[in-house]
Amino acid sequence: MEMAMVGLGRMGGNMVSRLLRAGHRMIAYDQSAEVVQAKVGEGAIGAGSLEEMVGKFEQKPRVVWVMVPAGDPTTQTIAKLGTLLEAGDIVIDGGNTNWQLALKDAEGLKARGMHYLDAGTSGGIWGLQNGYGLMVGGEDATFEHCKPLLAALAPPEGGLVHCGPEGSGHFVKMVHNGIEYGLMQAYGEGFEIIKKAKAFPGMDLQAIAEAWGYGTVIRSWLLELIAIGFKEDPELASLTAYIEDTGEGRWTIQAAIDEDVPAGVITHSLYERFRSRDTNSFSDRVVAMMRKQFGGHAVRPAGHG
Amino acid sequence: MEMAMVGLGRMGGNMVSRLLRAGHRMIAYDQSAEVVQAKVGEGAIGAGSLEEMVGKFEQKPRVVWVMVPAGDPTTQTIAKLGTLLEAGDIVIDGGNTNWQLALKDAEGLKARGMHYLDAGTSGGIWGLQNGYGLMVGGEDATFEHCKPLLAALAPPEGGLVHCGPEGSGHFVKMVHNGIEYGLMQAYGEGFEIIKKAKAFPGMDLQAIAEAWGYGTVIRSWLLELIAIGFKEDPELASLTAYIEDTGEGRWTIQAAIDEDVPAGVITHSLYERFRSRDTNSFSDRVVAMMRKQFGGHAVRPAGHG
Repeated sequence: MEMAMVGLGRMGGNMVSRLLRAGHRMIAYDQSAEVVQAKVGEGAIGAGSLEEMVGKFEQKPRVVWVMVPAGDPTTQTIAKLGTLLEAGDIVIDGGNTNWQLALKDAEGLKARGMHYLDAGTSGGIWGLQNGYGLMVGGEDATFEHCKPLLAALAPPEGGLVHCGPEGSGHFVKMVHNGIEYGLMQAYGEGFEIIKKAKAFPGMDLQAIAEAWGYGTVIRSWLLELIAIGFKEDPELASLTAYIEDTGEGRWTIQAAIDEDVPAGVITHSLYERFRSRDTNSFSDRVVAMMRKQFGGHAVRPAGHG
Repeated sequence: MEMAMVGLGRMGGNMVSRLLRAGHRMIAYDQSAEVVQAKVGEGAIGAGSLEEMVGKFEQKPRVVWVMVPAGDPTTQTIAKLGTLLEAGDIVIDGGNTNWQLALKDAEGLKARGMHYLDAGTSGGIWGLQNGYGLMVGGEDATFEHCKPLLAALAPPEGGLVHCGPEGSGHFVKMVHNGIEYGLMQAYGEGFEIIKKAKAFPGMDLQAIAEAWGYGTVIRSWLLELIAIGFKEDPELASLTAYIEDTGEGRWTIQAAIDEDVPAGVITHSLYERFRSRDTNSFSDRVVAMMRKQFGGHAVRPAGHG
């Protein structure tokens, strides 16, 4: 088949490579001419603008995958594509777009007779080799039309699911990421308990993580990554205890609130990320202030941390 | 090699089968003569008492694996073995024994010149087929002596780790189970959000769980079990929302407190189990009582839930 990719970053670039290897005709566009050239070197057809990209298709309906940062860049790219494509063409949003925004993006395209798929995409930098987990929302016919492309991106054994109508793919990917926060936090807490165990100092976290990868109940892909991470840096000395988030955890919790689901573990995992970024939190100082007030407890004055 | 198994339940019985298949000479003892006979049918040497079991060894040092319920049954079995075995013999505790109790069990044996290994064992009913994850504590020489048996129980690719001295195997297995609580709760919350999503009613949880098993960040063995579970019973109608615990989560949290580790996710996961067992909690009634007192909010009187 034929597909254009808008955005050749870490995710989009690797996806183009995977689709080229599967024999699909790929049109590659990015704001950076340099990364476009790199994909041309792999066999893609390069484009210097969205307009040029749309003109390079040989087949209709055109299928354009948008893999630019979620939020305004994605919404603006999809809106622009709405003015360049024709009725019947298909736009796939593979980013971590908020599912409610996705509904609006889809609406704009559908008003022009175009089709929209939201393809929540998991797998990170390992996806090129292993394939990507794809959670897809949209019309049945549009999903079926794009299935050869989607199946080439997914692992051969599975990993592709049509969740429901437009927006449902991003919704399920959002929850996937919320679960991911919880899993990561559970492993983090467990390894810290082992690391700090006074009764058994110096246990080999790498050996434990690697052994846990076989036969145990908690074996997982994340645990494989943990074993690699401890091999590279047993004390994690190269890292700072500062954890970013990119929104999906927040939206998962919002969805939990909207549906009255007590998602305490996912919520707490997000809050631990907030806490990791603030080592002198106002909340902690309020509590320290109260202890000082009611009991004269020793406090650490500012600057003497 | 040669080993005796005390306790032929779901775990011990399968472990005997796995060791027999690996070519080891197995002596099997259980309080129930019937289950002993079943193992004799597989090629084990049966024993009707601990005394008889000890007499059936052909090699020294004797190696006895204890796989009876954690707590008093394990401690009493180990104490009895201490009176029946000789100096040099080895007792392995494979149960979910509290690591601090294990230190006392080990002390009793070591005072008689015997050796002790604690082998935290994971894998449940799947271990027979897949192999067991084994987290082992004890002396180097004792571990090395038993390694052929331990390696036969573990998956061929890995899953066996010598964590440190006596008690460390149970400690690491305890934390494994604490992590397990957190992972399970994170998946539970995520699937409930998808299940209840008003915007996308009727999504196929089985299809999503199965697809998540490939290419995604959250793929894991637990997720494979979830996919099987949803296949068997999509609405989980055959289950009650009541979750037991067998102690390891509590001990993990105690260890977290002892080492000043903020293990919020593991702790919350245990609390959710408590909450699952009490659908009319006193805490909830205290909160409902306050809302009634200060605001005259409608309450559900007892018997009108």
